[in-house]
Amino acid sequence: MFMKNLFMKLFFVLLLFVNIACAADPLPSWNETAPKKAIIAFVEDVTKPSSPDFVPLEERIATFDNDGTLWAEQPVYFQYFFVFQRVKALASQHPEWKNQEPFASVLKGDLNTALSGGDHALMTMFMATQSKMTTDEFEKSVKGWIATARHPQTKRLYTEMVYQPMLELLVYLRANGFKTYIVSGGSVEFMRPWSERAYGIPPEQVIGTSNKKKFEFRNGLPVLVETAEFNFVDDREGKPVGIESYIGRRPIASFGNSDGDLQMMQWTAAGSRARFCLFVHHTDAQREWVYDRQSAIGRFDKALDEALAKGWTIVDMKNDWKMIYPNDK
Amino acid sequence: MFMKNLFMKLFFVLLLFVNIACAADPLPSWNETAPKKAIIAFVEDVTKPSSPDFVPLEERIATFDNDGTLWAEQPVYFQYFFVFQRVKALASQHPEWKNQEPFASVLKGDLNTALSGGDHALMTMFMATQSKMTTDEFEKSVKGWIATARHPQTKRLYTEMVYQPMLELLVYLRANGFKTYIVSGGSVEFMRPWSERAYGIPPEQVIGTSNKKKFEFRNGLPVLVETAEFNFVDDREGKPVGIESYIGRRPIASFGNSDGDLQMMQWTAAGSRARFCLFVHHTDAQREWVYDRQSAIGRFDKALDEALAKGWTIVDMKNDWKMIYPNDK
Repeated sequence: MFMKNLFMKLFFVLLLFVNIACAADPLPSWNETAPKKAIIAFVEDVTKPSSPDFVPLEERIATFDNDGTLWAEQPVYFQYFFVFQRVKALASQHPEWKNQEPFASVLKGDLNTALSGGDHALMTMFMATQSKMTTDEFEKSVKGWIATARHPQTKRLYTEMVYQPMLELLVYLRANGFKTYIVSGGSVEFMRPWSERAYGIPPEQVIGTSNKKKFEFRNGLPVLVETAEFNFVDDREGKPVGIESYIGRRPIASFGNSDGDLQMMQWTAAGSRARFCLFVHHTDAQREWVYDRQSAIGRFDKALDEALAKGWTIVDMKNDWKMIYPNDK
Repeated sequence: MFMKNLFMKLFFVLLLFVNIACAADPLPSWNETAPKKAIIAFVEDVTKPSSPDFVPLEERIATFDNDGTLWAEQPVYFQYFFVFQRVKALASQHPEWKNQEPFASVLKGDLNTALSGGDHALMTMFMATQSKMTTDEFEKSVKGWIATARHPQTKRLYTEMVYQPMLELLVYLRANGFKTYIVSGGSVEFMRPWSERAYGIPPEQVIGTSNKKKFEFRNGLPVLVETAEFNFVDDREGKPVGIESYIGRRPIASFGNSDGDLQMMQWTAAGSRARFCLFVHHTDAQREWVYDRQSAIGRFDKALDEALAKGWTIVDMKNDWKMIYPNDK
């Protein structure tokens, strides 16, 4: 009898928690529009054991682009601001940069010319400033920057420019047994030092562009040293390749905002059983930025066409999100 | 009062479970010799909240070599038997293999000559048989083989040649909050299809040698296609590089058996706070194999010297393990 009573009591306590959990709105910063309803319908569909679309816990993989999907990306990817600061900090050790683009323009403060070389030139600059540092040293330089640097327009810390609705979505998915990953064109070495604190995503669940590292001894101690050679470019076709390489399972849900995420969505959508693909559309001139088909940063053109054609979920930031950043009123 | 009574009852039920957990031997196949004592002392040291060496849950990363550490590796790495079978199965599509080494020797059944090209030649053969297959197709070929192929000497399935003491160790570490990873020179594409069932290690925690993959469309569907080009070689200096690339955290415990694991151990040991490094030494001629400094497969020479010099734990299979394989009496 003791055990039976105990189990009955335990059962009711559990029921109480379940009721509380169900009653609370898991996505309070989302308006009651189509995207929120689609997210909740999908999650309930794949997690209810009685559902024909039920997905076992270990296969609940969700992949998120970072720039423009989890945090803002205007006027340029935030990693660029970090690189500019690194170029300035290291300029005295590299007198040759004064006559070498895109370094010369960065040092003169002419960011438009520096940016005209496109993503690849900027990633090369990123690697040049990283090269020969140990992984530990580089991590420290990122941590120092992210804790203090502020966005030129909003004057906020960059980690204060993460999207509150997406933070809620990450928590909601994890509460439903999903493993959440970042799959970004940005550098893995730049994201990992702060991804756990900002998003609750641990370093081992961050997939990104990376450079080759060398194992060697310095002062008798083993270190890993960054080189100026690309290891892997995690963008466009690279995203499904990176997912297969790092996870070895196909995601059942993917979240992005630009043409760079299209192949990840195609790969996700082509799996068997229930799938969910969502694009964030930047439509809010007042609270954030407005851009899509013509933008150099975060162009959303081919992917927008395909999302419309396939009926994938598109978030209209202006109308679907109650708030943008965590500190907004 | 209801709540107070309930919590008291809950408390005693929990206490009961804790007692049961503590009373049971977590490593029953290990003799009461030094390695078992060292493992348990380390785990208790890093998991007790009051310990000065306490390690938070998210940093409890343990990395395991596979061949010779989690399963046997004689007379050759088991992956080779898979490759030989693949070469025979695909020979009719590759008439050129009749005159091309190491394929020609494999087809003639002359495995000694086939093996004389060393690891790299064999990995190249592995990739040649894998090339142009989709990841899904290749996974099926591995699953079919591992379910039926038997070891030429023991006549067991290869997954029956995993080491029972190491299975217990994996379970014990996970029960203490460790995340367990494979870090192997073998191919990630070969290990992932069966690692979860054999070891409880999911695909996303398997790090290994891999080849480049291409995203493309076949019959209108996106696929990932294997190429014959190395992406990453996860051996020797490659092991710490692979760990940093995939996990982004330094392990606090590593387990290996050969010179190929030395750099992983050095990297693990050089971290701050408590560390644990263990080598399996193959010393049991009757129940398994005896080999170390002179062996072509799983050579244990420089790493043995360094393990002795640094006081790392060395398992003497013959004396420290009560049983080798799960089906042993």
